[in-house]
Amino acid sequence: MSLKTEIEFDVRFSETDAMGVVWHGNYLKFFEDGREAFGKQYGIEYLDIYHKGFFTPIVKSVINHKSPINYGERAKIITTMIPSKAAKIIFQYEIINLSTGKVSATGQAIQIFLSVETRALELLTPDFYEDWKKKMGIKI
Amino acid sequence: MSLKTEIEFDVRFSETDAMGVVWHGNYLKFFEDGREAFGKQYGIEYLDIYHKGFFTPIVKSVINHKSPINYGERAKIITTMIPSKAAKIIFQYEIINLSTGKVSATGQAIQIFLSVETRALELLTPDFYEDWKKKMGIKI
Amino acid sequence: MSLKTEIEFDVRFSETDAMGVVWHGNYLKFFEDGREAFGKQYGIEYLDIYHKGFFTPIVKSVINHKSPINYGERAKIITTMIPSKAAKIIFQYEIINLSTGKVSATGQAIQIFLSVETRALELLTPDFYEDWKKKMGIKI
Amino acid sequence: MSLKTEIEFDVRFSETDAMGVVWHGNYLKFFEDGREAFGKQYGIEYLDIYHKGFFTPIVKSVINHKSPINYGERAKIITTMIPSKAAKIIFQYEIINLSTGKVSATGQAIQIFLSVETRALELLTPDFYEDWKKKMGIKI
Repeated sequence: MSLKTEIEFDVRFSETDAMGVVWHGNYLKFFEDGREAFGKQYGIEYLDIYHKGFFTPIVKSVINHKSPINYGERAKIITTMIPSKAAKIIFQYEIINLSTGKVSATGQAIQIFLSVETRALELLTPDFYEDWKKKMGIKI
Repeated sequence: MSLKTEIEFDVRFSETDAMGVVWHGNYLKFFEDGREAFGKQYGIEYLDIYHKGFFTPIVKSVINHKSPINYGERAKIITTMIPSKAAKIIFQYEIINLSTGKVSATGQAIQIFLSVETRALELLTPDFYEDWKKKMGIKI
Repeated sequence: MSLKTEIEFDVRFSETDAMGVVWHGNYLKFFEDGREAFGKQYGIEYLDIYHKGFFTPIVKSVINHKSPINYGERAKIITTMIPSKAAKIIFQYEIINLSTGKVSATGQAIQIFLSVETRALELLTPDFYEDWKKKMGIKI
Repeated sequence: MSLKTEIEFDVRFSETDAMGVVWHGNYLKFFEDGREAFGKQYGIEYLDIYHKGFFTPIVKSVINHKSPINYGERAKIITTMIPSKAAKIIFQYEIINLSTGKVSATGQAIQIFLSVETRALELLTPDFYEDWKKKMGIKI
């Protein structure tokens, strides 16, 4: 079983481009929105992690675009955590265009742990994060 | 005589909206670009000011839109410093659509000085800035 | 009495800047969010107007910044329509930082009517808009 | 031999985030800047393609982040076309932080051809694009 969060949103006019659809780069904002909603739901928000002494910058993003979202359409972001043994946070994202019922995009982003103090990479999963995984019943 | 900087730029596709023109909010990015070019030309860049101990956040922006800029068009930003006795930095901006020859927008932004350390407002113009004004021959 | 809409939102990480607060230009996105919520509430959305044959571009924006919004803080946008005899749509905006209780910004934006077909300015208020104002009890 | 374009740019303040570095999603803007510079250099700009009757939306993006770019730093985008037999445009991107000499990110984006008229996918490489490839000496 995977932890998962779903949120819905209306596309902003400022997010469209001259093709009349959401500009492709804005999907990384939607992924971020999904990630933050996940953090809120499961008690692992950006600021929680920051207060434990870590930044979690993105080191890899992949976006697969399947169908566009037009201005005025409503969409859903499904954010699923992919369990990982490594000192990484991996999320999978799926954006559904609720106005057409079609998948608009799928994607993945990988985050690592950096010490806030030294900005050095953490090679081992921080304790607080292991504890959180245990609490959530994540086996890996 | 006023200090003035001119830069030219091509509009980004990601800056357009579903009307096919530059989204109005992006003009504040153009103003910022003009401001940074000004700082570079006259030795008063954001980081110069920061290293003197000050942030200079915007406290007021005004934009008057006159004519659109389409994707593929080239534009010019004219950034003019408006001398001020107060502890403020005031710039006037003019965006010219070079592809049509028309004024696209005019505007103004007012910045204040905040201490980096305390984030408190500086009521008096910082010494380094008075020195810079003198060096530039700004009389007020 | 003025028509008014209120919405709440969490600040996006991507909306912050290197000062650690929401980048000033993003307030125009918040104004847009407020405007769209207003349109939804009172039946005068962007696409409703578009289907009547009009674009309503912004011709003037003013933003007054009072206090910052940090990442992780929640905010409220109050969007109030200012009745106008002219062929214009005028909204006033107030952004409240709900985490501090302080006003973060106030502002105004003025929109005009352009024909979708000709992109020419409408000097007279379009009929559909007069009808909508009557229905809403707007006297001017 | 691969066709390649290099451009340099200064990071915008509005492109940074609360970690003090360029927000990861903005790299897709840099990729777009690289792509547009490529199009300008080799006579295959977005609007050239559009006037031939095609949109070329992104269907896949990958970004690998290696090291951050801070505000005030200068960067270079190297955009390299990857020859493809399919009806696709594939670019590889490399962003170098010129202030540190380090690679900041690498990535790839794949574009397809859509008919402007029908918005349907073109399964065969359009003739104009085959002609352009021949003219450029691209063998595949």
